[in-house]
Amino acid sequence: MDSAEDPTAISHVQEAVLYVADLDRSAAFYTAVLGLPQTYAIDEARFMQTGTDSTLILFRVQEIEARDSPIPSHGATGPAHVCFGVAPEAMDAWRARLGEHGVAIEHEHDWPLGTHSIYFRDPDGHSVELMDNTHYRKVWARLRER
Amino acid sequence: MDSAEDPTAISHVQEAVLYVADLDRSAAFYTAVLGLPQTYAIDEARFMQTGTDSTLILFRVQEIEARDSPIPSHGATGPAHVCFGVAPEAMDAWRARLGEHGVAIEHEHDWPLGTHSIYFRDPDGHSVELMDNTHYRKVWARLRER
Repeated sequence: MDSAEDPTAISHVQEAVLYVADLDRSAAFYTAVLGLPQTYAIDEARFMQTGTDSTLILFRVQEIEARDSPIPSHGATGPAHVCFGVAPEAMDAWRARLGEHGVAIEHEHDWPLGTHSIYFRDPDGHSVELMDNTHYRKVWARLRER
Repeated sequence: MDSAEDPTAISHVQEAVLYVADLDRSAAFYTAVLGLPQTYAIDEARFMQTGTDSTLILFRVQEIEARDSPIPSHGATGPAHVCFGVAPEAMDAWRARLGEHGVAIEHEHDWPLGTHSIYFRDPDGHSVELMDNTHYRKVWARLRER
């Protein structure tokens, strides 16, 4: 059932979350290194705009647990993963940008259909990936051909 | 600097991750209840297509830690959060769909600019949110007016 037929079709990942030790430190990292503007802040979180329709939310676990809010609680520990889409031709510019900020590239990966990813760590040790933003369309097109 | 000028502009959240105890159980939940097709599977993960350009990846933490892979490792524990965009007019259809699957709605939220969210839990207790997919564009437009 495609989205034209299914009123409950999900359009996209609208928020991804990372739990961090220091909101100021993490917001500064995501703004300076990744270019994500902070659009909103509450005691326990910072909202980092990610392109036109999605947001990375940085949460302080301790403050979520303490908050007086009707929003359902959550809070995880340990190194998580998030992946952001970037233009396929942006990889050299990204290598330069990460280098300018002293961020070490942990791994680069060539995927079978010609797309590429760059991996590095944020200040909490979360694994951040910058991936060719044509990757999934290519993968899904190939899977449909089978 | 907008995306037309900045070669390193990030376009969107391309992957969000949840760590789960039972891959089959979680994949079945996200396919049946949320309508996300499983497009790919590896020993430690299931890839659930989310609209046209993003993916939810379900990982088994134990298997990530054990894997022999060049991809940087990660793995978190505890209840996390993910939010998916849905059409603003889809909320009644979503209430019905969740009810058909016996999924309890934990909370509903009206946001100040007229958008709405529905919250429920997945089999691991992760907080899943379905949010009007016009929410962030409205928030960002309002912030720019200030």
